[in-house]
Amino acid sequence: MNDSRIEHDAFGPVEVPAARYWGAQTQRALGVFAIGTERFPSCLIQAFGLQKMAAAKANQRCGALDARLADAIVQAAALLRDGAHDADFPLTVWQTGSGTQTNMNANEVIANRANELLGEPRGSKAPVHPNDHVNASQSSNDSFPTVMHIATVRDLEQRLLPALAVLQASLAGRAQAFAGVVKIARTHLMDAVPMMVDQAFDAYARQLARGMERVRATLPRLLVLPQGGTAAGTGLNAPPGFDAAFCEELQSLTGLAFVPNPSKFEGMAVHDALVEASGALNTLASSLVKIANDLRLLGSGPRCGLGELHIPDDGLTSSIMPGKRNPTIAEALVQACLQVMGNHSTITMANASGLFELNVAKPVLIHNLLQSIRVLSDAARVFATRLVDGLGLNEERLAANVGSSLLVVTALNPVLGYDQVARIVRESLATGRPPREVALALGLLSGEDYDRHVDAKALARPHPAP
Amino acid sequence: MNDSRIEHDAFGPVEVPAARYWGAQTQRALGVFAIGTERFPSCLIQAFGLQKMAAAKANQRCGALDARLADAIVQAAALLRDGAHDADFPLTVWQTGSGTQTNMNANEVIANRANELLGEPRGSKAPVHPNDHVNASQSSNDSFPTVMHIATVRDLEQRLLPALAVLQASLAGRAQAFAGVVKIARTHLMDAVPMMVDQAFDAYARQLARGMERVRATLPRLLVLPQGGTAAGTGLNAPPGFDAAFCEELQSLTGLAFVPNPSKFEGMAVHDALVEASGALNTLASSLVKIANDLRLLGSGPRCGLGELHIPDDGLTSSIMPGKRNPTIAEALVQACLQVMGNHSTITMANASGLFELNVAKPVLIHNLLQSIRVLSDAARVFATRLVDGLGLNEERLAANVGSSLLVVTALNPVLGYDQVARIVRESLATGRPPREVALALGLLSGEDYDRHVDAKALARPHPAP
Amino acid sequence: MNDSRIEHDAFGPVEVPAARYWGAQTQRALGVFAIGTERFPSCLIQAFGLQKMAAAKANQRCGALDARLADAIVQAAALLRDGAHDADFPLTVWQTGSGTQTNMNANEVIANRANELLGEPRGSKAPVHPNDHVNASQSSNDSFPTVMHIATVRDLEQRLLPALAVLQASLAGRAQAFAGVVKIARTHLMDAVPMMVDQAFDAYARQLARGMERVRATLPRLLVLPQGGTAAGTGLNAPPGFDAAFCEELQSLTGLAFVPNPSKFEGMAVHDALVEASGALNTLASSLVKIANDLRLLGSGPRCGLGELHIPDDGLTSSIMPGKRNPTIAEALVQACLQVMGNHSTITMANASGLFELNVAKPVLIHNLLQSIRVLSDAARVFATRLVDGLGLNEERLAANVGSSLLVVTALNPVLGYDQVARIVRESLATGRPPREVALALGLLSGEDYDRHVDAKALARPHPAP
Amino acid sequence: MNDSRIEHDAFGPVEVPAARYWGAQTQRALGVFAIGTERFPSCLIQAFGLQKMAAAKANQRCGALDARLADAIVQAAALLRDGAHDADFPLTVWQTGSGTQTNMNANEVIANRANELLGEPRGSKAPVHPNDHVNASQSSNDSFPTVMHIATVRDLEQRLLPALAVLQASLAGRAQAFAGVVKIARTHLMDAVPMMVDQAFDAYARQLARGMERVRATLPRLLVLPQGGTAAGTGLNAPPGFDAAFCEELQSLTGLAFVPNPSKFEGMAVHDALVEASGALNTLASSLVKIANDLRLLGSGPRCGLGELHIPDDGLTSSIMPGKRNPTIAEALVQACLQVMGNHSTITMANASGLFELNVAKPVLIHNLLQSIRVLSDAARVFATRLVDGLGLNEERLAANVGSSLLVVTALNPVLGYDQVARIVRESLATGRPPREVALALGLLSGEDYDRHVDAKALARPHPAP
Repeated sequence: MNDSRIEHDAFGPVEVPAARYWGAQTQRALGVFAIGTERFPSCLIQAFGLQKMAAAKANQRCGALDARLADAIVQAAALLRDGAHDADFPLTVWQTGSGTQTNMNANEVIANRANELLGEPRGSKAPVHPNDHVNASQSSNDSFPTVMHIATVRDLEQRLLPALAVLQASLAGRAQAFAGVVKIARTHLMDAVPMMVDQAFDAYARQLARGMERVRATLPRLLVLPQGGTAAGTGLNAPPGFDAAFCEELQSLTGLAFVPNPSKFEGMAVHDALVEASGALNTLASSLVKIANDLRLLGSGPRCGLGELHIPDDGLTSSIMPGKRNPTIAEALVQACLQVMGNHSTITMANASGLFELNVAKPVLIHNLLQSIRVLSDAARVFATRLVDGLGLNEERLAANVGSSLLVVTALNPVLGYDQVARIVRESLATGRPPREVALALGLLSGEDYDRHVDAKALARPHPAP
Repeated sequence: MNDSRIEHDAFGPVEVPAARYWGAQTQRALGVFAIGTERFPSCLIQAFGLQKMAAAKANQRCGALDARLADAIVQAAALLRDGAHDADFPLTVWQTGSGTQTNMNANEVIANRANELLGEPRGSKAPVHPNDHVNASQSSNDSFPTVMHIATVRDLEQRLLPALAVLQASLAGRAQAFAGVVKIARTHLMDAVPMMVDQAFDAYARQLARGMERVRATLPRLLVLPQGGTAAGTGLNAPPGFDAAFCEELQSLTGLAFVPNPSKFEGMAVHDALVEASGALNTLASSLVKIANDLRLLGSGPRCGLGELHIPDDGLTSSIMPGKRNPTIAEALVQACLQVMGNHSTITMANASGLFELNVAKPVLIHNLLQSIRVLSDAARVFATRLVDGLGLNEERLAANVGSSLLVVTALNPVLGYDQVARIVRESLATGRPPREVALALGLLSGEDYDRHVDAKALARPHPAP
Repeated sequence: MNDSRIEHDAFGPVEVPAARYWGAQTQRALGVFAIGTERFPSCLIQAFGLQKMAAAKANQRCGALDARLADAIVQAAALLRDGAHDADFPLTVWQTGSGTQTNMNANEVIANRANELLGEPRGSKAPVHPNDHVNASQSSNDSFPTVMHIATVRDLEQRLLPALAVLQASLAGRAQAFAGVVKIARTHLMDAVPMMVDQAFDAYARQLARGMERVRATLPRLLVLPQGGTAAGTGLNAPPGFDAAFCEELQSLTGLAFVPNPSKFEGMAVHDALVEASGALNTLASSLVKIANDLRLLGSGPRCGLGELHIPDDGLTSSIMPGKRNPTIAEALVQACLQVMGNHSTITMANASGLFELNVAKPVLIHNLLQSIRVLSDAARVFATRLVDGLGLNEERLAANVGSSLLVVTALNPVLGYDQVARIVRESLATGRPPREVALALGLLSGEDYDRHVDAKALARPHPAP
Repeated sequence: MNDSRIEHDAFGPVEVPAARYWGAQTQRALGVFAIGTERFPSCLIQAFGLQKMAAAKANQRCGALDARLADAIVQAAALLRDGAHDADFPLTVWQTGSGTQTNMNANEVIANRANELLGEPRGSKAPVHPNDHVNASQSSNDSFPTVMHIATVRDLEQRLLPALAVLQASLAGRAQAFAGVVKIARTHLMDAVPMMVDQAFDAYARQLARGMERVRATLPRLLVLPQGGTAAGTGLNAPPGFDAAFCEELQSLTGLAFVPNPSKFEGMAVHDALVEASGALNTLASSLVKIANDLRLLGSGPRCGLGELHIPDDGLTSSIMPGKRNPTIAEALVQACLQVMGNHSTITMANASGLFELNVAKPVLIHNLLQSIRVLSDAARVFATRLVDGLGLNEERLAANVGSSLLVVTALNPVLGYDQVARIVRESLATGRPPREVALALGLLSGEDYDRHVDAKALARPHPAP
């Protein structure tokens, strides 16, 4: 049959689909791990490409690989980095806890591809051997966590932070657009004192700005790589200086300031840095839920809700209530955030489950982390461009609300004292009479004084903005 | 261009790939929700097929659809049920919180397919209209949660419970195979008194048996469906008796005892029944982690670990330590369990996030629940067949451990009292002398009495098994 | 000095406060575990009283204790059951994972108390010895988890279920009180079709009813006790039949149907039954958050919110906005629920952390579970009596909302078809004209037909209630 | 009766225990919130003392309070700061979500105390009024979150970081003490290559060092305070410059660099900074679980476990197995960590639950956060001083393990290639013959070459330590 070929590993021959680049260990793993459908995302495979490129170059520099083999490996690994071999990674994340099968998958694909580049057929394991050359000076135990860090840093830098910047700018833009419009503040969901619409959006924009700060604050520890630790952290079989050479090569491939972990043991046995990064996402998620819920509620209606905001039409509607418009995108964002928060639990438990020299919950940890980054990034960007950017104000409703509010009389506290002001509010609530009328009827102050102190617009921003 | 066609919805025309069955609302949604890569699993699309089949039959019975349209819808929906249209569901789970876009996707695919069956081209919306006919007497608000329940019940019944039964039998089988072998018990990880190996495996098997009980205990509430509530729970636009007719049709399609929810409002606004089901999975997950960790640790070694169990070889090895065998499958199971536990958090928060007449975190909730069922089922089955079934005992090691244990002297408590026995242990630990020697040297009892009371095999099962 | 006395254990003498009943092991533990301030709640100490009473009686029946000692132990333990010795349990939950120190604390307090009853001073350890007699036929390893189950079952039966029944009745009472009042339904927070206020409260009441079902469904597995397993599950040093005798005595002391676990190993090494119980609380918590949030939002205002409900005044107000009324009790309930949901994570992880013959996260597990039961029970009861019972309707606002709603025209779907109805809504939204006017202007139907089909009260309950 | 007195608030008179300093609003709240037993810890009450001191001084500086009243308030509030009034805070955390009742409690206690200092009886509300003077220029909405930050920063600085430093030094100390001892590394729990004992402890110490870095990295955002926002964030009723004056006074009281939040709205409506802090604790907790589990397992035995470490005796033992020594303190630490991880879920959800201008899950959030800091600090310190400091090595066992290990032959990879080395291991495992013997029998290399390459001590640290 010409649609399969025979590959060999240390345990013997295995039949592999002829069209695919993977080898014997990958094929065996496919037979063993018939679990779920979740494959690693392309960004992880690409990070493996970068890791194997940097390793080959470092091996050559350290004299552990000759130039011909190193060049072929670099060329083949570059194809992984470019996303050209995603289909050659058939395993799901439900495999051994070190990610060994996916590291071997990478080794095998690159070896086969490199051998082809050197004129040999797939499965030849020569001149490029998946373990001896592609994996030279490496173990899954240092390569896989290195790849976890590379993929995380790249996705934070290239996917999440730009998306957050878009949303931050979008919210700041709304703050500017809505400047000077008074609204009623709500505390405990109840009518409170007047404020400015822009103050609310400014707060949202600051949440994003600080969220970005939090993400960036995790980078110093994410840029530290365990590569060079090999099997258990000692660096056995890696040439002296391999770790530093690797990071230099990776820096020049990525433009990112990766450095070696002084304790390879720490970098392989625990993934505190990844839990920390997930924690930054978790904080962001909890913060974004609040923004999304505010906008959904302020835009509720159109007739029987709060109705202070106009949420832009997305062209989608109900399957039974024709023409009904729903805040669909805010809901998508909330759901993405709930996923991130649950993933954070999985990631935390995965880190806690390590023992001795190796954490063996790496695949589930990185699967959840990369999913969190992806859905948070995408949802934030769609939320910015499809919802926030199009927000409008219902100024009539806003003004009516400010006009009908009772607690503008809080401004009288310094004049009348708390207990007298409470009397006004109680009486006003009980009788339905406006607080000004009640205050005058109680003889507490003159109408002129009332109006001087109780001016919604002045109350909304009593102090100059900082 | 012949590779696209024009579809229409209430908002106007939209260009759609000619080869696909979806319509205008699906295509618009694709443009809006550019978030993530997570699509609904096939089992959810299949459940939609069943739901639309049962709805069409019920509509016909209630006089809301004529036979010709109903038949065409049933035929087309049967294709969904059979998994033939998975590729026509391009949306990810990151969409509106009611699942409306996926319900419309189902309506559109079925309408197009049914119209073809009736000799009309895709996009004609006649004679079968996606809203007026496929969605007749329905809303996304009752259809989607109905589908959530159908998919969950089917997956629990057909996927999870059989897999758990396999694992339960596998563990019980090991209990039988290992009957009568004495081992040292460990409490606080420390050497305790003797016990039987089968007692440990019997406990594991019972964990599974009770776990299955827990899963089954959730079914009464999962079999209750909100179908018939339409837009908000009132049943507006559904003919009288539609809910009961629907459940009867669904029963005959599935063989499962679905019944109408007496409060459609409850069934649409909260998903307590799904959180409950996830809770059963969460309990199982926490229980399976313990079993997997026990087996990993008891099989640790081969030379420097506890080494009481032989874990079968899976043909996979380290990328750097040639021939090293790792408990890979136990690690895959643990990781699947950590995912289930984190998903449970997401599911719980999704349920808590509902407001008024509709929970709008349905897609993320059901995505997580179906993933939990899938990975737990698959991982449990692989764990049973690839690891537990092949477990062997290192009887030499087991016997040596029992022989060297100190705390067999606990059996002397009733004879000497706790404080005297403590003296023996303390002395024995301090000097390294065997406890029998110490007891005799202290003059606490005769060698004959010692041997009569301290007999490891007798201690291991002092009472007949129940 | 007469304010301390000397107690002894197997390790030697220890100074103990003269006024306290605890002994040497408790005093040593106090010195070791200087962690936190969280003590076990009284209900756990009381459950220990019951457990030691039942054990002493069973020991007497099985011939392992003579009547004089057994009687003294029963008398002393009854004082624990009655809450008289809470102050003699000074340890926090942050101790060894088997709860051994608290079991020894119970043994020591009871021994000292029993010896006093028999005319001997505290610290004499005779005639009643804490290990040999109070702990006879027991280990911490079976006693502590038995106590965990006893405390949980009692608290579920006596605290939680009655509180849930109060809240269920309170919500059902509001459904009755509000019968026949039409309101606008909200899906995606947006105006939907009309419904009845009672339908919403009926759904809430059903959530509670089903929540109670879920709690009760966990009892069969909670009533199963590991007592009799002693050190590791084998029952070493317990007389034959001790487990059954213990459960019979406990049944007659508590009126609850406790039975022996056929696998003591299962009952000591995992706490699946407690995770399951926590799962029922978690489901309830997520369900109650939704109810509390609905009521908070429906009662928001008084002028600028949804304002459909009147939330009763609790006499508390803002520290700066005099007379402001906030839905404080709903907020307390939500916070209690968030605690329960987080505790559930801790409980799940605690169960997953067991190894070999003993779970050693028992104290943290039961601390969280009992806290969850307590705060959920109390918060549900206060919510019922202080908030739900006093709810009133703003009928004017409800009617105005129904009158202004657009989507009543959904009732025209079966007459005009989905696409024509969508035209009406779109036009009405764009122009602000009422939908009836638009429908007539578009010539889609007569005013008479419109009014026949679009009647809010009829739409709100199109079918008779089940 | 002379054991009660009458206090008044805006709603009327209330009877209060004569001996207590709280007033009418606190007493009313006690009647309403009969929920649970969890009171705020002393550190929160103390932070309230500091907050009221700084507010009174800032009010005086800004001209909002005269010196006589300000002095009396400062004097009274200093008593709170010193822990002298903890018993006057009877409310549990289950109250309104803004913490208003506890802020009012502080206002009332300070007012009563200040009035006494000024010669007036409790309950007089004059000359110092709880709202008009103690709460001057403040709201609960800005004061309570300010107090949350103050308590958190102080507890991180004074409690957590010192405890982590102790544990870090303790672990680093063990690394030094154990320098140069070879052990077998374990990956996947299985025997791997040789390493040094100190490398493991060095990794632990680095986990702590980086954990401390993470905690410190959260401080810049924790030092930012919303004080000055008053009711909703606008600063209504606060004099200009109050926020800056407050922070200056607080800085001089605490020595900590507190600064005003430029958006008071952000500081009151979300608590991202506290979720971030909890995230740092969560990362630490997951990291410490790993260390505790390693030490427990490495110290397991004494005869039938891994037995490489000697865990110091804590004087506590089993209630049934006399003299048994358990790693109790490691278990206490693990349990504390599981609490922190579950608390983190509650804290995250609490933050996500905010709406509009106020997060109303503040009490549950800060209760969980302060509990996390406390138990983590205490448990880390006890773990350091009672367990880690006393750790010893079982050098005999360590050496025996290294001697019996197979995978030292990994060192032959560069010489023989991966596939040949795999043959040696396979053969050695199958036959039980030592790998050296197998390698020679297979004719793969000479005994001399074998010994040159396979030298455990050299393998354990092939490169100089960085």
